[in-house]
Amino acid sequence: MEVDVKKVMEHLDEIYQCGAKPDGTFTRMAYSEEDKRGRALFRSWFEKLGIPTRVDEAGNLIARMEGSDPSLPAILVGSHLDTVPDGGKYDGAVGCMGGLAVCETLKAAGQMLRHPLEVIVFTDEEGFRFGSGLTGSSAICGEKLDISPDDLDMDGRTRREVFESCGIDIERIPEAKRDPKSIHCFIELHIEQGGTLDKNQIPVGIVSSIAGVSRYEVTITGEANHAGSTMMEDRKDALVAASQFIAEVPKTVKACGNPYTVATVGTIRVTPNSVNVVPGTCTFQLEIRDQHAEVMKEIETKMFAYLKEICEEGGYTYSVSPISYHAPAPMHEAVKGAIERAVKRTGTKYTVLPSGAFHDSLLMTGFVPTGMIFVPSEKGISHSRYEFTKEEDIGRGCNVLLETVLEADNMKM
Amino acid sequence: MEVDVKKVMEHLDEIYQCGAKPDGTFTRMAYSEEDKRGRALFRSWFEKLGIPTRVDEAGNLIARMEGSDPSLPAILVGSHLDTVPDGGKYDGAVGCMGGLAVCETLKAAGQMLRHPLEVIVFTDEEGFRFGSGLTGSSAICGEKLDISPDDLDMDGRTRREVFESCGIDIERIPEAKRDPKSIHCFIELHIEQGGTLDKNQIPVGIVSSIAGVSRYEVTITGEANHAGSTMMEDRKDALVAASQFIAEVPKTVKACGNPYTVATVGTIRVTPNSVNVVPGTCTFQLEIRDQHAEVMKEIETKMFAYLKEICEEGGYTYSVSPISYHAPAPMHEAVKGAIERAVKRTGTKYTVLPSGAFHDSLLMTGFVPTGMIFVPSEKGISHSRYEFTKEEDIGRGCNVLLETVLEADNMKM
Repeated sequence: MEVDVKKVMEHLDEIYQCGAKPDGTFTRMAYSEEDKRGRALFRSWFEKLGIPTRVDEAGNLIARMEGSDPSLPAILVGSHLDTVPDGGKYDGAVGCMGGLAVCETLKAAGQMLRHPLEVIVFTDEEGFRFGSGLTGSSAICGEKLDISPDDLDMDGRTRREVFESCGIDIERIPEAKRDPKSIHCFIELHIEQGGTLDKNQIPVGIVSSIAGVSRYEVTITGEANHAGSTMMEDRKDALVAASQFIAEVPKTVKACGNPYTVATVGTIRVTPNSVNVVPGTCTFQLEIRDQHAEVMKEIETKMFAYLKEICEEGGYTYSVSPISYHAPAPMHEAVKGAIERAVKRTGTKYTVLPSGAFHDSLLMTGFVPTGMIFVPSEKGISHSRYEFTKEEDIGRGCNVLLETVLEADNMKM
Repeated sequence: MEVDVKKVMEHLDEIYQCGAKPDGTFTRMAYSEEDKRGRALFRSWFEKLGIPTRVDEAGNLIARMEGSDPSLPAILVGSHLDTVPDGGKYDGAVGCMGGLAVCETLKAAGQMLRHPLEVIVFTDEEGFRFGSGLTGSSAICGEKLDISPDDLDMDGRTRREVFESCGIDIERIPEAKRDPKSIHCFIELHIEQGGTLDKNQIPVGIVSSIAGVSRYEVTITGEANHAGSTMMEDRKDALVAASQFIAEVPKTVKACGNPYTVATVGTIRVTPNSVNVVPGTCTFQLEIRDQHAEVMKEIETKMFAYLKEICEEGGYTYSVSPISYHAPAPMHEAVKGAIERAVKRTGTKYTVLPSGAFHDSLLMTGFVPTGMIFVPSEKGISHSRYEFTKEEDIGRGCNVLLETVLEADNMKM
């Protein structure tokens, strides 16, 4: 039994058209007309297969193919269809098309699973529109959502208004929470969004864990002063202090981490930001990611000790405000095992690697047995029109997903 | 013969009221209603003394007290009355009040100089309103003005419109150029806007030169990438590269310069400036100041060699665009000598020091024999409501100015 790769590629193309613009860019932002068109199209394919679909209270679209034993919980597969602005064709969509392909293949083969099989399209994974994502998966897991009816999108529309246009009642979102006993396991097929598989020419990755993420905002306060008449020895230049810190980040990661450990200063601003004034304050955001909480903690401790040292030596004051913390999320051992057996059966080369990026699986893995299958993303490019995954790799990923579903159907979790 | 310090302080207070706001801030921006009120008031004091005033084609306000020998060129003293927003009481105003005080003192003593004495209020020294200053002094020296009738101020008013409201015809500004033979010398009294005199408790500074200024915009281009899934070894983080450069600036100044050499990175921005994206580009502005062109050159050479090294090692590209260059401007030996003899006669402690900040004297010294007298600025603070110079220091400065004018009256330049 094998997935029809040509059909998967056709589906990807058709979904891509819901959001493609004449200038070559492509956007299917959550809750947009493009997103609605894509979902309606996706839904129509299940209806053609005779598989009923529903939309839950959080806007998650769920197709459900019953199994032979109605007492068993569902095997859940899927991903998301929303994209960032000027996004790529594969991020999210590959996992959804993979779920559809598994259903099509099973139907075509006349094979019925023991467990029900559900294919899910999660609501607003990217979080670009209102600045907070993983909305659908948060609701399913019963996680507190950091959203308000008054949140505004970039066009000044309220979240309530936007949700209503999608038939989502913000007050009723908590009702989307599932009983974890209703889910046998969750398996997400996704492009890597990193360059490890592509660089090493490995077509399949089994995700060991989704890296944890700590984010902090740091402000260093020195003294704004005339850049012409303030002698170097009298200065408290906040940008010089920040630069010492930022230049140290990669060294500390190298000293404390593993090849997948990362830390980034992605934003920076100084005041007054004038060519002839010594910067008085410098504010930047630091992000640390690793699959081990203790590695994250060690880097944090070393970097903030260094910050203290810089500031004491130079007479600066500073503040560190935590923005967010997500603990590393290991994937479920049994599901990883099922994926591994499935890959071996397809005879595909594979590796086990962490995911540096967030996915709906980050939340799902704390809720039900969860596993992730990665396919390569050329040069690691993602969130871009240049995102690309080869047809043969998509085919391999879909077949591994199919085989994993078959494995899971015969397993206890 | 001594200046009436009480009267100088009263004048400073009255001028200060033209621009003082109820919230404790103070702004007398060039060409504003506050600036016009201040100039009208200043003008009225000369009229009371029977000294005629005029406004030249560039809006410079000039009071002229004739001397005994009509064939001699004028001794020019003065400074500016415009301020930056939320500026200080002393920057510029002290030099104008000093010029007025010299006239008042000579008049009161019934003493007539051989040379005519002119007191000038230069137009728009600060350059805050349209982003380019030294307007009045540039016009007098016949320097090319980098201005356009279509320049917009922060309220969207055109330069033409604003100039017209002040009676300045932008087309006729070049007519303000003076014949340098009509000026015997220029002497500017000013607050230091740096901390050297205050820190060392020295009441008078004789300016050796105004530091030259080189400004550059530097852009480092790396690769924007996902901050979670891009391994450290695969990154080209433009902010890390920029930080290495910025942290090196003070070390290079220390290695190549003298205590007055300064270099500053005052502005910085990264793209895309997102907490979860490795910065793809970083753009910042570097400023180098010193009284010796060769020191500036050496720092520039070393820093840009270091930039090249960083970028070659890390696989970045970069560009360096010169923004502006002003050569160091030494003060005139004979005028410095006149100031020194004047200070000695008043029995005041003094030092010779460069000016890190710009002044109208920067242009004047390339045009006519020019000298500058500094008085202390508490803690070096300037361009701020906390700018402060003690009454006794203002008095000393005005008396040194008076004595210097008397010296210059008896000198050949």
